[in-house]
Amino acid sequence: MTTSPPATPAVHESTETPLVSIIMGSQSDLKIMSAAAEVLRQFGVAYEITLVSPHRTPHRLVEYAENARKRGLRVIIAGGGGAAHLPGMIAAFTTLPVIGVPINSTTSIHGLDSVLAMLQMPAGVPVATVAIDGAINAAVLATEILALSNARLADVLEKYRTSLKDKVMRTIEELRKGGFSDD
Amino acid sequence: MTTSPPATPAVHESTETPLVSIIMGSQSDLKIMSAAAEVLRQFGVAYEITLVSPHRTPHRLVEYAENARKRGLRVIIAGGGGAAHLPGMIAAFTTLPVIGVPINSTTSIHGLDSVLAMLQMPAGVPVATVAIDGAINAAVLATEILALSNARLADVLEKYRTSLKDKVMRTIEELRKGGFSDD
Amino acid sequence: MTTSPPATPAVHESTETPLVSIIMGSQSDLKIMSAAAEVLRQFGVAYEITLVSPHRTPHRLVEYAENARKRGLRVIIAGGGGAAHLPGMIAAFTTLPVIGVPINSTTSIHGLDSVLAMLQMPAGVPVATVAIDGAINAAVLATEILALSNARLADVLEKYRTSLKDKVMRTIEELRKGGFSDD
Amino acid sequence: MTTSPPATPAVHESTETPLVSIIMGSQSDLKIMSAAAEVLRQFGVAYEITLVSPHRTPHRLVEYAENARKRGLRVIIAGGGGAAHLPGMIAAFTTLPVIGVPINSTTSIHGLDSVLAMLQMPAGVPVATVAIDGAINAAVLATEILALSNARLADVLEKYRTSLKDKVMRTIEELRKGGFSDD
Amino acid sequence: MTTSPPATPAVHESTETPLVSIIMGSQSDLKIMSAAAEVLRQFGVAYEITLVSPHRTPHRLVEYAENARKRGLRVIIAGGGGAAHLPGMIAAFTTLPVIGVPINSTTSIHGLDSVLAMLQMPAGVPVATVAIDGAINAAVLATEILALSNARLADVLEKYRTSLKDKVMRTIEELRKGGFSDD
Amino acid sequence: MTTSPPATPAVHESTETPLVSIIMGSQSDLKIMSAAAEVLRQFGVAYEITLVSPHRTPHRLVEYAENARKRGLRVIIAGGGGAAHLPGMIAAFTTLPVIGVPINSTTSIHGLDSVLAMLQMPAGVPVATVAIDGAINAAVLATEILALSNARLADVLEKYRTSLKDKVMRTIEELRKGGFSDD
Amino acid sequence: MTTSPPATPAVHESTETPLVSIIMGSQSDLKIMSAAAEVLRQFGVAYEITLVSPHRTPHRLVEYAENARKRGLRVIIAGGGGAAHLPGMIAAFTTLPVIGVPINSTTSIHGLDSVLAMLQMPAGVPVATVAIDGAINAAVLATEILALSNARLADVLEKYRTSLKDKVMRTIEELRKGGFSDD
Amino acid sequence: MTTSPPATPAVHESTETPLVSIIMGSQSDLKIMSAAAEVLRQFGVAYEITLVSPHRTPHRLVEYAENARKRGLRVIIAGGGGAAHLPGMIAAFTTLPVIGVPINSTTSIHGLDSVLAMLQMPAGVPVATVAIDGAINAAVLATEILALSNARLADVLEKYRTSLKDKVMRTIEELRKGGFSDD
Repeated sequence: MTTSPPATPAVHESTETPLVSIIMGSQSDLKIMSAAAEVLRQFGVAYEITLVSPHRTPHRLVEYAENARKRGLRVIIAGGGGAAHLPGMIAAFTTLPVIGVPINSTTSIHGLDSVLAMLQMPAGVPVATVAIDGAINAAVLATEILALSNARLADVLEKYRTSLKDKVMRTIEELRKGGFSDD
Repeated sequence: MTTSPPATPAVHESTETPLVSIIMGSQSDLKIMSAAAEVLRQFGVAYEITLVSPHRTPHRLVEYAENARKRGLRVIIAGGGGAAHLPGMIAAFTTLPVIGVPINSTTSIHGLDSVLAMLQMPAGVPVATVAIDGAINAAVLATEILALSNARLADVLEKYRTSLKDKVMRTIEELRKGGFSDD
Repeated sequence: MTTSPPATPAVHESTETPLVSIIMGSQSDLKIMSAAAEVLRQFGVAYEITLVSPHRTPHRLVEYAENARKRGLRVIIAGGGGAAHLPGMIAAFTTLPVIGVPINSTTSIHGLDSVLAMLQMPAGVPVATVAIDGAINAAVLATEILALSNARLADVLEKYRTSLKDKVMRTIEELRKGGFSDD
Repeated sequence: MTTSPPATPAVHESTETPLVSIIMGSQSDLKIMSAAAEVLRQFGVAYEITLVSPHRTPHRLVEYAENARKRGLRVIIAGGGGAAHLPGMIAAFTTLPVIGVPINSTTSIHGLDSVLAMLQMPAGVPVATVAIDGAINAAVLATEILALSNARLADVLEKYRTSLKDKVMRTIEELRKGGFSDD
Repeated sequence: MTTSPPATPAVHESTETPLVSIIMGSQSDLKIMSAAAEVLRQFGVAYEITLVSPHRTPHRLVEYAENARKRGLRVIIAGGGGAAHLPGMIAAFTTLPVIGVPINSTTSIHGLDSVLAMLQMPAGVPVATVAIDGAINAAVLATEILALSNARLADVLEKYRTSLKDKVMRTIEELRKGGFSDD
Repeated sequence: MTTSPPATPAVHESTETPLVSIIMGSQSDLKIMSAAAEVLRQFGVAYEITLVSPHRTPHRLVEYAENARKRGLRVIIAGGGGAAHLPGMIAAFTTLPVIGVPINSTTSIHGLDSVLAMLQMPAGVPVATVAIDGAINAAVLATEILALSNARLADVLEKYRTSLKDKVMRTIEELRKGGFSDD
Repeated sequence: MTTSPPATPAVHESTETPLVSIIMGSQSDLKIMSAAAEVLRQFGVAYEITLVSPHRTPHRLVEYAENARKRGLRVIIAGGGGAAHLPGMIAAFTTLPVIGVPINSTTSIHGLDSVLAMLQMPAGVPVATVAIDGAINAAVLATEILALSNARLADVLEKYRTSLKDKVMRTIEELRKGGFSDD
Repeated sequence: MTTSPPATPAVHESTETPLVSIIMGSQSDLKIMSAAAEVLRQFGVAYEITLVSPHRTPHRLVEYAENARKRGLRVIIAGGGGAAHLPGMIAAFTTLPVIGVPINSTTSIHGLDSVLAMLQMPAGVPVATVAIDGAINAAVLATEILALSNARLADVLEKYRTSLKDKVMRTIEELRKGGFSDD
């Protein structure tokens, strides 16, 4: 039905088979979505990151989603702004878990349009929606899912949580030492 | 890519080749969308009406949209509620004009979610969105489009407009005769 | 009823009779609406672009809308911000298809006010509303409508879609070559 | 330009020349707008009440608005739901004060769509918008305007305010006597 | 009840008794509200402009509103942001027409909070709400009200409307002469 | 300045001097606000409940708020719908803590209008806003405030919290015993 | 720190160790959340369903979340309305994937309040939010996650998707046979 | 249950036992919340200010809230953005009055998400929510609460109110002297 070239990913982080895919509809989404890649790199999760436009490359979307499981992908993170159809349509063609990242932009309504276009999926085809511009949390959630059958990642997540806590505690300490005051 | 049966329409109104397609994602949308069919029937526009679910029958969506022009369809009216991806994804696979009807439902946010999921399409792939539950206007708009190359329909639309005006004027007259009063 | 000068258009792109009209309420809308003109120029669709203010030149609106069909116009693209009455009132005086472009501005509510003021038209008088600041899509939609009886434009639209896809694929290739990485 | 019958009002309350006009787009708005008529009747303000549809009888709208001042009308109350263009377009054709009443309905977004379609008028052409379904307040506001040059009405308004206060005070008294309790 | 100094206005534009009062809650509102003063000055309407804070000078509010009519004021324009109580509370203490101007600010929700805090008044005590930051329209509306018993102002308003139209027509002409083009 | 009768409360629950006042603008708010009275009665907190309309009895509001502290009141709970000015204006006339209860109604926008009209108070004059229709929580919050200098109430609150927990635990137990199942 | 009884689940569906937990804040949420249990039962996924109130049983929340992983749970589905803190606070105490189900109710703002209270989590602690009242999709998403390491469930999901498609196709066929028509 | 270090506050303003606690989830909230500290310092109210992250230091939250009363705190001011769970979860673990400050940020929806996540608490566990970014009012409200049993603070608040009024009156005077004019 389609004559597109094979929907191979634009960028591999490593020679390992990627477990997580980070896709988005346009290059302008990269400034938000690259944060997901950074988290996965830090966690040592093999990923790929590429463009799949639901409206400009719809056949690529079909092919990408249908091949995802057999290519070894386990979780798909899909970001989009406005009438963000990417995560929902990917989810229509695969039963892998799909995580949606609503992206705010100048012509969007504070990102609320993309929240609703991802969140309000019909019964049977879920999208796991995270916060507006929440690419970091999409990567953390993907890792939580992978960690269910990967003890190393479960440990990584525990350490990550501890680091989050430690950062807050250090800030508190610095504020205390610095004689932080309101005036 | 798909093994679905041919995406032939569920219902033809006549033996004529349909010019307008009325599609929706689920049977529950029929109570709203059937008003579009009624208008087209009154206007003498051949149409078909059927279900195409973007999330439950995504291959049917691809096939339906790709075959639409060659089957002789001129305009596609697509209704949906919640994360309403149907009109936008149909538009991704065809360059026929696509009219979107946002449908309100008990779990939607006054239909605003489906408005935004249809309206906020990216540059290059438009959806002509009409009012919430505005199936009648979708049919009128489809007829306006067809009337550009069909003098009979242009005349039908003029008469329809006159009938709308006449109905208002008759109501005014009845109110006047009936001694309409506020108490 | 009016003594305004004839509502001739401000600007013709060519000596051809314009098929599409791009109108807006104020000069400040030009920065958004000129994108529609640019698309039509690229597609080789004769158009005119001018101001018609529903509140400051209401008689011009009436005259413009009533003469549109006989002047040869086929589609009217009307942009507006705030209480955007232009597309809806144009639609009240003609049965040509009217496309509305909601325009965001500093005193608008993210453009949601103009979306609702265009979209929520009563039964019988539709406005085909596109995305906030979606002037490009308005022009594409107008061309889709004209292409129903113009094989050249149908071909132009196919090529345009291909170009949209090609641009995405080229970006993917560049990202791949450039060793795009998240860090 | 128009061949409509003269836009004479549907209903006069009295043989006096009406000072206030109550208009709306459709008969279904009467259940809300008749409250304005009731208030004016109680205040002894001559009024008329009729239908003027901006989208179905646009020429009537032009004629009605243009003749309003010369017919002796002083204030126009215009109600509408959805993309409520009536008050704004009336205001475009007259410099009489125009009061807008946003009307909630089943397909509206809590009346917020009609609020915004009335309120967000461009500089130069105001609409005095009141509360959603606020027909009573529209009539009170119209009377406040007329009372500036009508001592009887100024007195009527003072008495009305006193009656509002008295009703609250009587309720307080009844609650006190009735041993109002929370259980 | 109050020991505040007499609530005399901060600034008179002329030695004439002011007919219109422009009030606001804080100095920061002046950048918006001064546009109302400018319009009234151009129209030759005597006005005063001052601060009345409903929450910081509530007794001044009571005194100001109660004395407004006897001081000769005819219309009160009240601007405010956030939980904008000024117009509604002024209206509670006088039966003069009160016009509300919702003001957007950095901590407001696009001005929608002040719109709703002004608009949604209970039955009996109206506020004539205009557009967000719509100080110009508040002044035009005030003049429309005064013009009902002032032929000069009625004429001024007609000329103002003509000037609005002329400005649009001149822009059209300039665009036409300048060979305005979209590229 | 006012000739209203003394703003004595409509209803005392007991012969004790009330510590908490529950006020609202209209009798229709009683169905929501009486829940606050019920909570206070159960907690053994002396209260009064009455009507104070900011727009229909504004002088009563001034007098009520100014006398509140000297009458022995410690906390004022004020409920309202629409453009809910009551809590904010009470707060303008007293430095007692004022708790606002936004009330939903058929013509309100899901209560969001009253939320914003209470919440968005300017710096210096706070209103402690609770949930939409949250009269129970208003009473609990008032008791939390009183409990700071009342050991019995601190104990009552602890017991109340325990009872809330116990009720959840009992429900869990009943569900377990009842063999609760999803089919 | 807490003296609550052990946070054992209210209801087991089977003697198997549950893999999925379905929790909610109050019994009234059961009418929505029981749909998740029904889906898991049909899919043959061992689950438990019980109450955990973040505000009324906060210690139970801490204990429940901290023990979840060691008790063998793999995914937690948490439903809530209003200021829905349950999924986010569960996520704060565990690194298991947490799925949030926003629940609409009479005092909520169309469920939008609970959507935002779940979705907008800070970086590091994600909640996978699904549609308003989307308990079915929460169960499907949980199963998609479990299916990554469970071939039977992967197969179950494929069959489920096929059944969704088949149901649509059967409806189309029935409509076609039944001579479905719009009049 | 937790092994965190004791949740001692980051910063004391004085050697007095703090009565008011100002807490927030992240350092970025300090630019808003420090205004609360400044007000309390001016009022002579002993306070502490520190970080407590509900999602990154949840055990600290539990410990902080549970120890608050015995440490002598009387009122807790908790600020947060996005899915702002801090005030609500603090309130779940203490019966001290908790004041919530919704904080706007670039990825929030005008702060409306944090408003709703604080405000819409279930019956039994209130949060006293103030305006978006309303840290000043949180401090004033805390002082109003303390002033109920502290005559000095009651006096401070009266003087503060007078200073607010005086500032408005001085501005009026300056405007009058400066010949403030609109042009």
